[in-house]
Amino acid sequence: MRLEHDGLGQMELPEEAYWGIVSERNRKAFDVGPLTLDNYPSYIRAIALCKIACARANAEIGALDPEKAKFIEKAAWEVAEGKFKGNFVVNIYRGSGTPANMIVNEVIAHRANELMTGDKAKGTIHPNTHVNMCQSTNDLIPSAKEMVVYDEMGKVIKASEYFAEVLRSKADEFADVIKMGRTCLQDAVPMTLGQEFGAFAHAAERLVKRLKTEQARWNQSCIGGTCVGTGMGCMPGFRAVIDKHLSEVCGRPIHTEEDLYDGMMATDGLVIAHAHLQALATLVWKVARDIRLLGSGPRAGFGEINLPAVAPGSSIMPGKVNPVIPEMVFLSTDRVCANHAGLVSGVLSGWLELGTSSGIPIKSFIESADLISRTMRVFADKCIKGITANRKHCLDMTEKSTSLATMVSALFGYEIGTKIAHIAIDEGITCKEAAKKANVLPDSVIEELFDVNNLVDPNKMEALFKKYQNYRSV
Amino acid sequence: MRLEHDGLGQMELPEEAYWGIVSERNRKAFDVGPLTLDNYPSYIRAIALCKIACARANAEIGALDPEKAKFIEKAAWEVAEGKFKGNFVVNIYRGSGTPANMIVNEVIAHRANELMTGDKAKGTIHPNTHVNMCQSTNDLIPSAKEMVVYDEMGKVIKASEYFAEVLRSKADEFADVIKMGRTCLQDAVPMTLGQEFGAFAHAAERLVKRLKTEQARWNQSCIGGTCVGTGMGCMPGFRAVIDKHLSEVCGRPIHTEEDLYDGMMATDGLVIAHAHLQALATLVWKVARDIRLLGSGPRAGFGEINLPAVAPGSSIMPGKVNPVIPEMVFLSTDRVCANHAGLVSGVLSGWLELGTSSGIPIKSFIESADLISRTMRVFADKCIKGITANRKHCLDMTEKSTSLATMVSALFGYEIGTKIAHIAIDEGITCKEAAKKANVLPDSVIEELFDVNNLVDPNKMEALFKKYQNYRSV
Amino acid sequence: MRLEHDGLGQMELPEEAYWGIVSERNRKAFDVGPLTLDNYPSYIRAIALCKIACARANAEIGALDPEKAKFIEKAAWEVAEGKFKGNFVVNIYRGSGTPANMIVNEVIAHRANELMTGDKAKGTIHPNTHVNMCQSTNDLIPSAKEMVVYDEMGKVIKASEYFAEVLRSKADEFADVIKMGRTCLQDAVPMTLGQEFGAFAHAAERLVKRLKTEQARWNQSCIGGTCVGTGMGCMPGFRAVIDKHLSEVCGRPIHTEEDLYDGMMATDGLVIAHAHLQALATLVWKVARDIRLLGSGPRAGFGEINLPAVAPGSSIMPGKVNPVIPEMVFLSTDRVCANHAGLVSGVLSGWLELGTSSGIPIKSFIESADLISRTMRVFADKCIKGITANRKHCLDMTEKSTSLATMVSALFGYEIGTKIAHIAIDEGITCKEAAKKANVLPDSVIEELFDVNNLVDPNKMEALFKKYQNYRSV
Amino acid sequence: MRLEHDGLGQMELPEEAYWGIVSERNRKAFDVGPLTLDNYPSYIRAIALCKIACARANAEIGALDPEKAKFIEKAAWEVAEGKFKGNFVVNIYRGSGTPANMIVNEVIAHRANELMTGDKAKGTIHPNTHVNMCQSTNDLIPSAKEMVVYDEMGKVIKASEYFAEVLRSKADEFADVIKMGRTCLQDAVPMTLGQEFGAFAHAAERLVKRLKTEQARWNQSCIGGTCVGTGMGCMPGFRAVIDKHLSEVCGRPIHTEEDLYDGMMATDGLVIAHAHLQALATLVWKVARDIRLLGSGPRAGFGEINLPAVAPGSSIMPGKVNPVIPEMVFLSTDRVCANHAGLVSGVLSGWLELGTSSGIPIKSFIESADLISRTMRVFADKCIKGITANRKHCLDMTEKSTSLATMVSALFGYEIGTKIAHIAIDEGITCKEAAKKANVLPDSVIEELFDVNNLVDPNKMEALFKKYQNYRSV
Repeated sequence: MRLEHDGLGQMELPEEAYWGIVSERNRKAFDVGPLTLDNYPSYIRAIALCKIACARANAEIGALDPEKAKFIEKAAWEVAEGKFKGNFVVNIYRGSGTPANMIVNEVIAHRANELMTGDKAKGTIHPNTHVNMCQSTNDLIPSAKEMVVYDEMGKVIKASEYFAEVLRSKADEFADVIKMGRTCLQDAVPMTLGQEFGAFAHAAERLVKRLKTEQARWNQSCIGGTCVGTGMGCMPGFRAVIDKHLSEVCGRPIHTEEDLYDGMMATDGLVIAHAHLQALATLVWKVARDIRLLGSGPRAGFGEINLPAVAPGSSIMPGKVNPVIPEMVFLSTDRVCANHAGLVSGVLSGWLELGTSSGIPIKSFIESADLISRTMRVFADKCIKGITANRKHCLDMTEKSTSLATMVSALFGYEIGTKIAHIAIDEGITCKEAAKKANVLPDSVIEELFDVNNLVDPNKMEALFKKYQNYRSV
Repeated sequence: MRLEHDGLGQMELPEEAYWGIVSERNRKAFDVGPLTLDNYPSYIRAIALCKIACARANAEIGALDPEKAKFIEKAAWEVAEGKFKGNFVVNIYRGSGTPANMIVNEVIAHRANELMTGDKAKGTIHPNTHVNMCQSTNDLIPSAKEMVVYDEMGKVIKASEYFAEVLRSKADEFADVIKMGRTCLQDAVPMTLGQEFGAFAHAAERLVKRLKTEQARWNQSCIGGTCVGTGMGCMPGFRAVIDKHLSEVCGRPIHTEEDLYDGMMATDGLVIAHAHLQALATLVWKVARDIRLLGSGPRAGFGEINLPAVAPGSSIMPGKVNPVIPEMVFLSTDRVCANHAGLVSGVLSGWLELGTSSGIPIKSFIESADLISRTMRVFADKCIKGITANRKHCLDMTEKSTSLATMVSALFGYEIGTKIAHIAIDEGITCKEAAKKANVLPDSVIEELFDVNNLVDPNKMEALFKKYQNYRSV
Repeated sequence: MRLEHDGLGQMELPEEAYWGIVSERNRKAFDVGPLTLDNYPSYIRAIALCKIACARANAEIGALDPEKAKFIEKAAWEVAEGKFKGNFVVNIYRGSGTPANMIVNEVIAHRANELMTGDKAKGTIHPNTHVNMCQSTNDLIPSAKEMVVYDEMGKVIKASEYFAEVLRSKADEFADVIKMGRTCLQDAVPMTLGQEFGAFAHAAERLVKRLKTEQARWNQSCIGGTCVGTGMGCMPGFRAVIDKHLSEVCGRPIHTEEDLYDGMMATDGLVIAHAHLQALATLVWKVARDIRLLGSGPRAGFGEINLPAVAPGSSIMPGKVNPVIPEMVFLSTDRVCANHAGLVSGVLSGWLELGTSSGIPIKSFIESADLISRTMRVFADKCIKGITANRKHCLDMTEKSTSLATMVSALFGYEIGTKIAHIAIDEGITCKEAAKKANVLPDSVIEELFDVNNLVDPNKMEALFKKYQNYRSV
Repeated sequence: MRLEHDGLGQMELPEEAYWGIVSERNRKAFDVGPLTLDNYPSYIRAIALCKIACARANAEIGALDPEKAKFIEKAAWEVAEGKFKGNFVVNIYRGSGTPANMIVNEVIAHRANELMTGDKAKGTIHPNTHVNMCQSTNDLIPSAKEMVVYDEMGKVIKASEYFAEVLRSKADEFADVIKMGRTCLQDAVPMTLGQEFGAFAHAAERLVKRLKTEQARWNQSCIGGTCVGTGMGCMPGFRAVIDKHLSEVCGRPIHTEEDLYDGMMATDGLVIAHAHLQALATLVWKVARDIRLLGSGPRAGFGEINLPAVAPGSSIMPGKVNPVIPEMVFLSTDRVCANHAGLVSGVLSGWLELGTSSGIPIKSFIESADLISRTMRVFADKCIKGITANRKHCLDMTEKSTSLATMVSALFGYEIGTKIAHIAIDEGITCKEAAKKANVLPDSVIEELFDVNNLVDPNKMEALFKKYQNYRSV
């Protein structure tokens, strides 16, 4: 045990703890759930990166002893890289950003002292005076938030690209599997399973583009505004050099917000950023729902595809394989959607000069980003990759469909189309058979118009239209 | 045009308007959407009923001239009965309860004067002095809220009972339609369509009971607490008699809240009451989703049931009938669920002594109650009643199911069951055929165990278990 | 009364109705709430514009008689301009897009016939054959959706610009009103009321930029894909010319979706677009909440500003003026937020090939856009413009604040700052008085450091820091 | 390492693991977040209790060897008591209830074998054949759900009672602290701080009653219905005895659901149960928001109360103490509200015969229950208990309030009241001073009417009304 003290008195801390007395108070006071800041490494990393940039800036303007700055930076890089995982012991419901800022200050200070003196409890680097220095939680956390969103979105983009690739390769694999397209869950017109998976892939590719555009916006900083934006306590010259240092540390251009008061007060940008994750979640959910439905059966369902078995199915029903991966997708994407509601509440909890609760929206954002990324990878690897198509069943259902009369209807008028459809329905036969029975079209035409290979290809259909256009009378 | 004036000056009002200058100001200032208080008749009614009880109470204690009280009551009954629909012109986003309270005061006062003098612009009854008298919006609106919830829940209960009845009669009709039960969208074990519709019916019946219990709670009043609960401005003796009058007017016992400060401050009860509507909405949504799925096809879907056509289907696809009623159900129940989010926001907007925004939760509650009631009636009448079953197709799919091996598995062990299931799957034959092929059970046993009529009836299955129990070896 | 018939039989329609039998069936079947498509003019307009472009395209490729096309176009322009308001009688919960597509087809057809023959019931233009022609609801509605979002966002952008301007001009007006900045609702450091309103203005300006970027994306079309994307029924040559016509009709470039299957299936883009409205709603809500709080009092609250009276306040409390406009803002922005939940549910209701329920998300989007636009205008005009500042009270509170010791703390160390703050707190005096009493700094320094005019200006503070930097010892 | 095998092959398991191969597959396949079933001990406990009752029932009817049943029961009690915490390694997003059911089966079986043989890998008790026996996830999980809700609600009730007690004792402590009551954040009429805290206390007491009523409903079981409700695989006689055993194990009466099909299919009851937690969350949020506002300042805010310091405040602003506990409350109650959205999504994910996703609603429910319970305790202990009142400041603000004219207005007419209020406002004096200046009432009356001690007590006000009733002229 070692002793530390602050304005409220002294406390004992575990010998091995890199955190300090302020965080220890927070740890003890807020026992409201199983997750701590340790579960949000990208948040800790972002704060640590800000600390490096600030130490460099303060050293440059002569406000901080360069030797101290050097050790602070060294310690902060270690923190950023996750070396002190296990030390960020404050509960996530301990609100606002202060506890996150302070625990990073404390871990860095203790580690910097240890690097300097060999003993984390000895040394001249103080969490407030030297690590926090002229920053305020108010200007630091909104700046870290931007880095977190950028980094987490990067993770989501990579996972989305992978998800899109796997879907795209299934689309290629299924390019010639002809099946019924359905609208309103009713048989509509033929299409290929490849077109269907291609649409899923395209949607994911499309969202990747949106995510990239959104990601690029998250490059602002409020550092230098200190408490409410006026910059009280900030050292002369600091504001002139901080962007340069932040940009170097982050490896990409970072700019100070145009209006620092707004930058600290408002977190509404998170609503839009998170909606990108939510939109992605609705897509992934939809793909899971549709795939589970296409795989329903094996005999009393759609039965178009087979999902790979991940675990033995029912303990009492032999041969039953449940779509457990799509069901996992429902749960995790539902959580992403529910996080949106929580994030918006958090955004509304920012009063007057400070988006106080930006801490929780950040954490909701991280949870969603992590969850959707992992979900897409598991879904792609453990389910989509292994899907096989029941080609014959797909084709059979298509040829039996009464909606094949649509093409006749389009070419020769609704009346003839309807007549054929009704014969097919009433007698339980295919449209092709019904067309022959109806005796209204020559057999050669019937063969062409009910050849489903023609009906899934816009160009072939256009050719048929041209061929038979004189029959049309609209 | 007639002129009225108030503390802020004078205004012109349309000759035919029963509302007054305060409401006219509200009407003009708040132009934010198409709906006005006229769309919430049960809210207007509840306020009017409170006014009657207050007039009676104030007359009884000698605070209000009995003649005036008589005309106020007469006018208020007319308002309660909807006679002045068209006069409640204030936008619903004009917040809190004041505009609702004031417009009812004004319409009653003008009508009472008209009844007294033949001219609504002449007379001695004043909206504030005599109609509002010692009430405050703060004590009146929470009291009206209770009546609204009671009445709207009554409407929902009736519609739910009807919905349950229609489902129950379909359950009876389909009692002998044997079909596959499905879990996780995979074929599970046989059941009857009647058991399925019976579950829907039972769920509705079950929620009716919950709604009735909840409804009975909404019988509290805050009237007499005036502004924050201390009752400043309330006439001596009023609090002693108001419950009696409220109970008489409402035709059921009404009690003054135990803690008036709480009664005015908190609207959290609405969260629970609305959750009853939301639970109902999730059930109705589920029934719509399941029915739409069971009716998918006609040839490339589940095809177990047929939904009645409400409108011609596709303009280009002959014979396509879309499940438009279930789709309407999705939209309206989704709105009920979304209203929950809005209602909770409203509940959180009540600061300090006053649940300021109880107005909007009340209106959300009314919208939800109205929507879910109408939805259940349309769903029952235009869709559920007309559903027909494809008995043969249901039976065929059941007999083809590989999961029939479950019963063998239960009786003779998982190994034999699995063997039969796999033969059936691999060779594309029924389990019964597979069982014969496997040659592990006598034919008579096979006939019994794969007779689907046995498998949908717990008693018959129990009898089979008893008959073959010596074969079991667990 | 006039008679019409369709596949399901015949019906009577009101003589004056421009809608037809399909819409009449929809009108009758779906009685679930007070709002109809008439409440969504931008949606009707967008569909009508698509019809014009399609008529031109079909005429160009020889598929539609040019004379008919001319009358269809003429009628459709009238519809787009709102001339037939009152005819779009279908309930908004009548799901999907078919009823919207069909009612526009019917109104255009009847009007076109009327233009041609003088009698809407006579003529050769048929709603399906000539107006709908080769379109499907499936390709048309997603295309109209894009136009709706573009147009509604345009409306929101204009209102947001106005809102920002009004806030900006108040920021200028209040540039020299010194007040306490607050974080976590606790006195923090001085700032100006102008800086605070400037932050509100900047946030609105910032969101305007985001809205413009988002708006520009909504320029895609699916027309030509007909039912599921394969384009069955589409006339040869149509796809090659439709973009040109859509672009001409809309007055901006419109492009066919890269993947038509995705274009019809997915509506996730609405989640992101609506989140822009939601982000704006959270900002407007925040401004309302903060302004209401700054105006709390008049004597037992913050009392920094006065809000203009819109309506007489309490009927029983003389002189009480309630912040009714901010309260309206809560309600309408809460509705926008709740709409997000409903919209997401609608997005999830799009099964397989068709985003069936895109209808309701579109309508939620329109409702939100309309509501937030009107809300910002009313808020700006009826409240923000009329706000006045209580300069003296703001200054008094600032000078009394114990947090003025922050500047001393920053310059001369935390210890001296804390000492001064504690003297001020304990003796109930100002920090300036406490500083003099503490006798740790020369009077001239005290005058400078506690001059609040210095403390709201970053440059002046930086100058002070430079002046006293030798005293610092960090 | 030890080896196990199942239908899909064999796997290695850690020597110390009590879970088995099925759970190991689940653990490996579903890596989507930091929480596992170990975080939901009440869920594990409930499943284990069901297993005990089933073992007893199966033993009683002769279906299970009594010796095996004895060891199963012994092991299951240990599981229920949390002895194997650390073994429930399956991720919470591994959907539905199967993995939860199976991991409990496996841990019990291994432990039972260990108790029997001294080696968990040896023995004759099989997770499926003997522990799961005739249960299905479908009938077991809905039954466990009921126990979980009951137990978690019990926890919430205890915490709510504690929260109410602490508030009640502060209400007593503050019974004579006179302050301004506020409506719409504007000064309204005087009240006591005790009345305000009393309202908070009463609200909590009121919700305790509701929670108790709700809790009592959760006593149903589906066990015996096996897969979809037909009970296939259930041993003869089992259904007749299971309720008795469940009741004994749970120590309270448990009943089989009236309609087993409904019992397995629907989870809508969770919507209502969770809404009780949500209603409580809105109350706790409201109390936190109001307390934080009443404690705003110290000098530029309401300043009515002081919140105890939990951690040192700002690092740069001496003496600043932030309301960190109320801010924690915002975050955790926002999470409870967001969970409602997630729970409803989960409820909607139950398709056809099975409320597949009841797993995630149960877990959301547990998270909310745990969070709100801990939140109330921390809020009560670390914040509410330590609140002190600024009596003098409260009284000063009350006496300065211009709304004291309300009582004059009520007694002597609105005109006199308004006159006094306006003099007070215009000249910046108190109403009492203004009343004397106005010279419209005798001094003795003035003393009585502006004595705030009279104005917070309904009885004293009623007495004043009686005394001066002749002056009234309404």
